[in-house]
Amino acid sequence: MKFMRFLTPDGPRFGLVAGDELRELDGDIFGGWRETGRTFDARNVKVLPPVVPGKVIAIGLNYLAHAQEKSRDVPEEPMMFMVSPTAIVAHDEPVVLKHPEHVTEHEAELVVVIGKEGRDIPEERALEHVFGYTIGNDVSDRTLQYKDKQFTRAKSFHTYKPLGPVIETEVDPTDLGIRLWLNGELRQDSRTSLLIHGVPKLIRVISEVMTLYPGDLIFTGTPAGVSPIKAGDVMEIEIEGIGRLRNPVRA
Amino acid sequence: MKFMRFLTPDGPRFGLVAGDELRELDGDIFGGWRETGRTFDARNVKVLPPVVPGKVIAIGLNYLAHAQEKSRDVPEEPMMFMVSPTAIVAHDEPVVLKHPEHVTEHEAELVVVIGKEGRDIPEERALEHVFGYTIGNDVSDRTLQYKDKQFTRAKSFHTYKPLGPVIETEVDPTDLGIRLWLNGELRQDSRTSLLIHGVPKLIRVISEVMTLYPGDLIFTGTPAGVSPIKAGDVMEIEIEGIGRLRNPVRA
Repeated sequence: MKFMRFLTPDGPRFGLVAGDELRELDGDIFGGWRETGRTFDARNVKVLPPVVPGKVIAIGLNYLAHAQEKSRDVPEEPMMFMVSPTAIVAHDEPVVLKHPEHVTEHEAELVVVIGKEGRDIPEERALEHVFGYTIGNDVSDRTLQYKDKQFTRAKSFHTYKPLGPVIETEVDPTDLGIRLWLNGELRQDSRTSLLIHGVPKLIRVISEVMTLYPGDLIFTGTPAGVSPIKAGDVMEIEIEGIGRLRNPVRA
Repeated sequence: MKFMRFLTPDGPRFGLVAGDELRELDGDIFGGWRETGRTFDARNVKVLPPVVPGKVIAIGLNYLAHAQEKSRDVPEEPMMFMVSPTAIVAHDEPVVLKHPEHVTEHEAELVVVIGKEGRDIPEERALEHVFGYTIGNDVSDRTLQYKDKQFTRAKSFHTYKPLGPVIETEVDPTDLGIRLWLNGELRQDSRTSLLIHGVPKLIRVISEVMTLYPGDLIFTGTPAGVSPIKAGDVMEIEIEGIGRLRNPVRA
């Protein structure tokens, strides 16, 4: 199933995507919900971020070709850091560059949406804790990232985490095509089968450190092909079986 | 005023500390509250963490003598990272070492509790966004911290962020004595006047990146004197005008 969050005249609602039809839901996608019977045209609604996360955990250097393009060693274990949930922005909303004078790059990523609380989750049970998958753009201020060493600031500015447009609950994450176009030109083109540390291992290692709750997000890392963005650019990311996330860039 | 959160027969409550008396409150300390008229003996209650934070932002290398003892350059700007709110543990609760075979150290810190939402907060208005101050122990697995480079994992294990016992709303943070005893022996002994980046600057710089909400925490950094801890140890931190935070260590 594909879930979308969107704005109705009565406020934010979840909806089930069925082609161009959006079936409004009553309730919480992580708890109980039912269809209200009201439908909307999915092409004509204001899309909201599909989830308001408690925690956003991100993984660095999780595709070999990206580590190589940045001349970095691949970490033996997943390299985790956290970014602020206030950086999340919806499909079609602009990424507003905080420092247009810095080098800032796009990063297409598969994002795991946690559905069930857990800690010390073994790999063989990890997928039971997944609600679904969405698309993320881990926009990164490289000037600050190299200066700070810690990644949190460079990746947490308001609007630097485009997310959505939908959460897909029925896709197998092990071998999905992931592509990013900058102004229509293909820049990132890879497959999630090339993730060094796959989804079950990420969930095991992160949950050894911290309890995961429904709505928490894991940004799984970006493949090769990252490149600088500037005001006026348009970024589009497609992940096979999930959808397409589009965001313009403003200064 | 000193606020404490504690367990009553009816569940968790906030209380106002008046000497040994704890005056039970109804409501939310960040919103509206009133005294219920019920009182407890502050010496005999189960103390809870004073706040359940949305975000925990921490600052590295913010006292010169600590940067020197770790042979690190002082960052020009505050070095920020985030740790998981699930690491928070109350006064008197044990820090349970996840990896007793690693080098793990205590870090006494002044912690800012945000009281009012804001972004892009100027320094001269920063203190209006502070609810109060509490004591934190930024327990750090050095083995993982040096290996990972990113600090999140090393500092986010469950129980690695002792916090409390109270939030003091009326203290001036600019020159408070801060001390930590390990098994009764004084190990850290400094003053918050030695913070390289003071509280108003931290709030300005962090809020340029992310929106701050009531209950968010800023761990302001630790002074010199950090040292390894092991099962059986007892850590006690005192910050002048706030109180004393005590936590045993278990394996």
